[in-house]
Amino acid sequence: MPKPRPIDYADASPAVRAVYDDIKATRGVPDVNNFWKYLANDPQGLERTWASVRQVMAPGALDALTKEMIYLAVSVTNGCGYCIASHSAAAAKAGMSEAMFGELMAVVGMANETNRLVNGYRVPIDPAFDV
Amino acid sequence: MPKPRPIDYADASPAVRAVYDDIKATRGVPDVNNFWKYLANDPQGLERTWASVRQVMAPGALDALTKEMIYLAVSVTNGCGYCIASHSAAAAKAGMSEAMFGELMAVVGMANETNRLVNGYRVPIDPAFDV
Amino acid sequence: MPKPRPIDYADASPAVRAVYDDIKATRGVPDVNNFWKYLANDPQGLERTWASVRQVMAPGALDALTKEMIYLAVSVTNGCGYCIASHSAAAAKAGMSEAMFGELMAVVGMANETNRLVNGYRVPIDPAFDV
Amino acid sequence: MPKPRPIDYADASPAVRAVYDDIKATRGVPDVNNFWKYLANDPQGLERTWASVRQVMAPGALDALTKEMIYLAVSVTNGCGYCIASHSAAAAKAGMSEAMFGELMAVVGMANETNRLVNGYRVPIDPAFDV
Amino acid sequence: MPKPRPIDYADASPAVRAVYDDIKATRGVPDVNNFWKYLANDPQGLERTWASVRQVMAPGALDALTKEMIYLAVSVTNGCGYCIASHSAAAAKAGMSEAMFGELMAVVGMANETNRLVNGYRVPIDPAFDV
Amino acid sequence: MPKPRPIDYADASPAVRAVYDDIKATRGVPDVNNFWKYLANDPQGLERTWASVRQVMAPGALDALTKEMIYLAVSVTNGCGYCIASHSAAAAKAGMSEAMFGELMAVVGMANETNRLVNGYRVPIDPAFDV
Repeated sequence: MPKPRPIDYADASPAVRAVYDDIKATRGVPDVNNFWKYLANDPQGLERTWASVRQVMAPGALDALTKEMIYLAVSVTNGCGYCIASHSAAAAKAGMSEAMFGELMAVVGMANETNRLVNGYRVPIDPAFDV
Repeated sequence: MPKPRPIDYADASPAVRAVYDDIKATRGVPDVNNFWKYLANDPQGLERTWASVRQVMAPGALDALTKEMIYLAVSVTNGCGYCIASHSAAAAKAGMSEAMFGELMAVVGMANETNRLVNGYRVPIDPAFDV
Repeated sequence: MPKPRPIDYADASPAVRAVYDDIKATRGVPDVNNFWKYLANDPQGLERTWASVRQVMAPGALDALTKEMIYLAVSVTNGCGYCIASHSAAAAKAGMSEAMFGELMAVVGMANETNRLVNGYRVPIDPAFDV
Repeated sequence: MPKPRPIDYADASPAVRAVYDDIKATRGVPDVNNFWKYLANDPQGLERTWASVRQVMAPGALDALTKEMIYLAVSVTNGCGYCIASHSAAAAKAGMSEAMFGELMAVVGMANETNRLVNGYRVPIDPAFDV
Repeated sequence: MPKPRPIDYADASPAVRAVYDDIKATRGVPDVNNFWKYLANDPQGLERTWASVRQVMAPGALDALTKEMIYLAVSVTNGCGYCIASHSAAAAKAGMSEAMFGELMAVVGMANETNRLVNGYRVPIDPAFDV
Repeated sequence: MPKPRPIDYADASPAVRAVYDDIKATRGVPDVNNFWKYLANDPQGLERTWASVRQVMAPGALDALTKEMIYLAVSVTNGCGYCIASHSAAAAKAGMSEAMFGELMAVVGMANETNRLVNGYRVPIDPAFDV
């Protein structure tokens, strides 16, 4: 198995093209980004993942910006470079300012710090939080 | 060194009591929760951490609810049980509904899934995300 | 301490060369890969790690391909770029097809997603799973 | 928002019951386990996640046992207690013996060890793994 | 496969007993702790792991206390409850005071915080750190 | 929002310059490294983080070298490339030899391995570690 390679629209099967077309139409972009082109190596996974992303990221009880910032917070915590780059762009497109990004980062950093303080001090759950 | 134990107000030093008093006044609560009582074993760490949390979690470019949900998203990703319990409560107090929590969880799950798809397929950053 | 550097066969001590020779003979390869050349900065660690890897990765109740795919699943979850590259190659050499890789990635992604849903919903262990 | 609670069949909406019925029929079990009962707090997430799990975990290029062991390897790496318990049971049901579990654990442990050795020694990818 | 169970000395095979005896003699303790009793379900893994732990944790360029504190820092970062409990005890036995533990926790928390700030701001490595 | 960019001294506000000056004076270096230049995009975060790092990393119950090695152990565990590079340099400056680094890496690897063995075998805490 060679290193995974992106599948461009021109080389894609009709099923993959249909997903690409839906992504482009939904997002109003001229081409899909690399994530989808690599995932297309697993056509069934591509279709399933896009259907899930489209449903999960659509505005609902939470607006699109909040959802993108949550996605970014997870990606920063996991240290996924591609995900940080693409979801920083997506969050900015949805309205995240530089000041909002700075505060998001401060919260993400603080949460990762205090999560470990809790682990190390073996803090038991307060009864009030457990009902 | 025995297992870390919580330090109650009655047993706390004046410096620790001053922090407890500030937490109680800032949050309008009758007592501090376990996190602070355990962290009080390191009085300097208690003071520094509270000063940071107070500054980072105050409303600014992001409102208090958004900050609590980001905190929760990180805690869920890290699997910190205490942190999930306490910040679910804090987010709910700041206005998170059950529907909002459900959508937050869906985004956190999706982000953790796609972060790994990106890792495994070794997806390179699109030039558009890197400027 | 400068940045760690690889130790090539020509520059290696007799003890390190003995490990390199055993790796090359066991795997039927003309040279060891970078992992071993860097780890050789700690000769005792090199010897111990190779002895463990040789024992752990040998076919037993699980065949070599299954073991390589488990190794890859962990590396993808941890986001270790080098490990993903080297163990993708090793799994492919052991028989992993592109279709198998696609399904492996789908399972790894799904597991990382549902692990977080479990964390956030604070799901207790069913009694049936705890005996 | 109180602590999440499980939704039993008797209290479930028709849409949730339909998912429960499909899980029970697909797996041949008298009741769904806690994961689904908690996730039912987000009916759309329940339906989407079950559809994904059913597709991803079905035998294909990889058999059911291999898929369950990969799921377990990820859960052990992430330290998700519920997931380890439920997928240990699922893997055992699919044919994992105690000896296979022991070897799986040895590979998972080894991979987590060497992933960090790679990080710390800053090992660059061998050219042969990057094509 | 039932839930893993501990194997007590009385029920252990001669090979497992030999490892238990060596652990007890090396550490001067009347019984081995639960980690070894569970790992004994994989006798080969027990023997290999004990041989590695004995070698890795022996005083060398780093003293025993420093090694135990590094072990604890990793366990706190990973959120491994058992490991935090057992290695807090081991570090205390090796000389860690409560003040040292408090400072260790502060560093662990800070490192987990700044690691994420680095991720999110996509900080490139300074040339001076890369030679 | 474009990709985060470093803020050099010449382009920095007086408040940011004051932090840079304090870092340079405290560490005796001619310029601050990239971490601070990127974090300067959030001036309040820069000031708070530097104040915390200065306090946490100062010698106390633990000496500076031990603190740097703990920082490095966490960074290696999290797979933060920048942090590994910068804290390897800082630890070396504080006195870490290549042999000490090799032993540190061996402990970090071992801890990450055994943390997962504990997870998978579901090892309960020994009563002696829980008091």
